Amino acid sequence: MELYSGHINKLIEELAGLPGIGSKSAQRLAFHIINMPKDKVERMVNTILGAKENVRYCRECFTLTDSEVCPVCANSKRDHGTIMVVENARDLAAYEKTGRYEGIYHVLHGAISPMLGIGPGDIRLKELVMRMQDNVSEVIIATNSSLEGETTAMYISKLIKPTGIKTTRIASGVPVGGDLEYIDEVTLLRALEGRVEI
Amino acid sequence: MELYSGHINKLIEELAGLPGIGSKSAQRLAFHIINMPKDKVERMVNTILGAKENVRYCRECFTLTDSEVCPVCANSKRDHGTIMVVENARDLAAYEKTGRYEGIYHVLHGAISPMLGIGPGDIRLKELVMRMQDNVSEVIIATNSSLEGETTAMYISKLIKPTGIKTTRIASGVPVGGDLEYIDEVTLLRALEGRVEI
Repeated sequence: MELYSGHINKLIEELAGLPGIGSKSAQRLAFHIINMPKDKVERMVNTILGAKENVRYCRECFTLTDSEVCPVCANSKRDHGTIMVVENARDLAAYEKTGRYEGIYHVLHGAISPMLGIGPGDIRLKELVMRMQDNVSEVIIATNSSLEGETTAMYISKLIKPTGIKTTRIASGVPVGGDLEYIDEVTLLRALEGRVEI
Repeated sequence: MELYSGHINKLIEELAGLPGIGSKSAQRLAFHIINMPKDKVERMVNTILGAKENVRYCRECFTLTDSEVCPVCANSKRDHGTIMVVENARDLAAYEKTGRYEGIYHVLHGAISPMLGIGPGDIRLKELVMRMQDNVSEVIIATNSSLEGETTAMYISKLIKPTGIKTTRIASGVPVGGDLEYIDEVTLLRALEGRVEI
């Protein structure tokens, strides 16, 4: 059995190490890359290196950005008294895509997970507490609705309580357009508990 | 709406251009790469460049390889009189994985597809005909069982007919372990037509 050559195998192995890329996808990607024109491969490689080289954490909210302060934090039109706490930069982007949130963010870069050995000291919680000394009127906790996200939300609310700053949690319930029939029981119960008067 | 920074956006865009990578996967991969240690990113980039630089077509069968002649073609123990024609290097690898095929290969790098504008001149057919001048006793056509694969198989069989060399096609039918109930009608009919005495 003689499969692929050394260079191809090495490339497949490297690509299969990326998240969400299985061995079949890695093969397909490897052959795609090998068949790409040389200048395109070089452009891709330079983009990777450029991103790795130039992207850093925002000094204020710790999202990933090209400059010292990210565009959201640098925008004086945003409400700097409202901080939304998210787990990562993709969650920040999800809220930014709605185009309706006027406040700023705080990116934790993870969530507390005893299972994975991630404690409060491993995410940007100390930095969040530091920010409470500025003029903050509300902290909106927008961690995921998972076990880790809920644990982190509870932890943050306890952390902030002594400061007296208003702390809220984004609502959990039936997604818009969702058909009750296909929604899990935990979500249904959560939606019931969180019911609001109309 | 202020989403990602320039470098991150460029990287996401670049990754989303790869086959099978949607915009969500591209985001996830981009953040993974940005969070990878610098030496690992550099190793990945060098693997990509190394593969692109060093991988070439085998002089004999046109599969992708590091050397002038691929290990299969260079192996004198293999039966050089039997050539299996496949669409690409991954199909070659699939048969090599079985460990039971003793002959050599010919990689077409594609299949005839009028829909995609791929004609007989766009794949390695001329090179296959050239190889017929060597001592070839059988050509096994192992193109895919798709419209394009079948078209290509028909074309090749007509091309080889004048030489008098035995030409065969891999069997098409019910996959081993397949449950008839879940198999499409075309395959069922093909399996019926291709029935063999036991």
